[in-house]
Amino acid sequence: MKKSFFSEDQWIECWTAPFLRRRTSGIRYALGHDCAVLHHSSSNQTDLVLKTDAVVEGVHFTRSTPPSLIGRKALARPLSDLAAAGAVPRAALVTVGCSNSIHARRLQKAYAGLALLAKKLNLHVVGGETVRTRQLLLSVSLLGAVAKGRSPGRSGGKPGHLLFVTGKLGGSWPRRHLTFNPRLAEGQWLVRHRFASAMLDLSDGLGADLPRMARASRVGFQIDPKRLPLAPKTTPRSAFTQGEDYELLFSVPPRQVALLRKKWPFSTPITEIGRLLPKAHGFDAGGLPMRGYDHFR
Amino acid sequence: MKKSFFSEDQWIECWTAPFLRRRTSGIRYALGHDCAVLHHSSSNQTDLVLKTDAVVEGVHFTRSTPPSLIGRKALARPLSDLAAAGAVPRAALVTVGCSNSIHARRLQKAYAGLALLAKKLNLHVVGGETVRTRQLLLSVSLLGAVAKGRSPGRSGGKPGHLLFVTGKLGGSWPRRHLTFNPRLAEGQWLVRHRFASAMLDLSDGLGADLPRMARASRVGFQIDPKRLPLAPKTTPRSAFTQGEDYELLFSVPPRQVALLRKKWPFSTPITEIGRLLPKAHGFDAGGLPMRGYDHFR
Repeated sequence: MKKSFFSEDQWIECWTAPFLRRRTSGIRYALGHDCAVLHHSSSNQTDLVLKTDAVVEGVHFTRSTPPSLIGRKALARPLSDLAAAGAVPRAALVTVGCSNSIHARRLQKAYAGLALLAKKLNLHVVGGETVRTRQLLLSVSLLGAVAKGRSPGRSGGKPGHLLFVTGKLGGSWPRRHLTFNPRLAEGQWLVRHRFASAMLDLSDGLGADLPRMARASRVGFQIDPKRLPLAPKTTPRSAFTQGEDYELLFSVPPRQVALLRKKWPFSTPITEIGRLLPKAHGFDAGGLPMRGYDHFR
Repeated sequence: MKKSFFSEDQWIECWTAPFLRRRTSGIRYALGHDCAVLHHSSSNQTDLVLKTDAVVEGVHFTRSTPPSLIGRKALARPLSDLAAAGAVPRAALVTVGCSNSIHARRLQKAYAGLALLAKKLNLHVVGGETVRTRQLLLSVSLLGAVAKGRSPGRSGGKPGHLLFVTGKLGGSWPRRHLTFNPRLAEGQWLVRHRFASAMLDLSDGLGADLPRMARASRVGFQIDPKRLPLAPKTTPRSAFTQGEDYELLFSVPPRQVALLRKKWPFSTPITEIGRLLPKAHGFDAGGLPMRGYDHFR
């Protein structure tokens, strides 16, 4: 069977099957979550968080994308996953693939863009690798840390929990997908104060990512399209399906919502968009299509 | 300036310049060593070790390479770096790049080969990523652990320290570069017993890797070509320059050598091949050329 018959989710499932069969006590979350969260045997306070992510020419950016923004996005994407885990990023590994003909200046600018964001976050690039590939490719692996047992993952959502998103949705092309700020402080705060029962970052769009959270939590959901916080010139439909928002989606137990609203210390808005329901209810987004952006197709 | 004018070392230097300028107390070794070794703030016993490495079609394997061996090699290469750090591998992230046209079975077999080696080592694949690339590519990032402050790095060699290698050198093509066993137990043992003042794994060949160790340690060296432990059908020259050996090269203070020989518990041989000398002595390999395999060219 050819690969092109599969979606990204199906491929991940197919490849990771040999690994998923193994259960182990040292790993809290792994495949199927935004990040892997590991118990660290010699620490009583900290779980370690791992994430890898790659951007490729022709898929995540084009030949005309400013190279400093390519480097920035290569780091910002996995940082957004660490944000969803409530983790503080500690170290990055950067793998660059490029052809022999690419100009040195383009690569140096990509690296400089990455280094600038890393510096802003006091995150250290501690290693890397260069390989020869036909397309320009930047792959970033991150190590982070989070208070032991606190990272919510995707599977803790319960029927009745209310669904929130940070920021505005939609309209991330042509520019915002290159310049977004990963919601690290927001995610860390939500985890530190235990508001989020489940959390993920919206990379493929609510229409793809919300069903993932619901499946992991074994629940259904109901979304009110009229409540979606729309970026300028966006329809609910495009905000729901376009992806590349890099906002946080999280569920909150109803008794916590008033306190969350009262204590929320950021200028980034949060918006209640719906609620989790028993699994039998299914997925209901008021008629919006249950799909998002599939980087793989 | 075009990239093709640079060697791999020059490129690493060029790209990493923005990161090397920053010094930080939380990092013992980073760029320029086989692995990054990080202090873990909430642990008094353990340093964390990070490494990333990639294999690409047309560079590290061909279209006719058995796919299970591609997967195996993708994991075994960075494991060899962890071996040189004396680290125990804990978790792996795997990024796969492939085109739409590649067959599912080829990829599944590559993953199965990787999973098999991981299982043998009780190493967990905790996450990954799939991207669309024209050539098949597997990138593996590893997290490992080593006793605090014990990992030798490349820079601890002193004039007078004796140089050893594990195993045999040369002749790794066409097969052994795909089937080698990373010297994890040997590296962990050497570090646990503090025999190695500096250590690295031979991926590009002695002719490239030994000068790297010498430069990092600010010393010279003298190698006796007649003492190189040769694989069958290999000349000293090809053993010195061909690369892909994945054996350990390490330096040992002279007062430790007798004890090392007496206590060495492995069937893997170790061979004394020369010694480190004051920097002014320069690099002397008895006429063998000071170069190795450059994956980048």
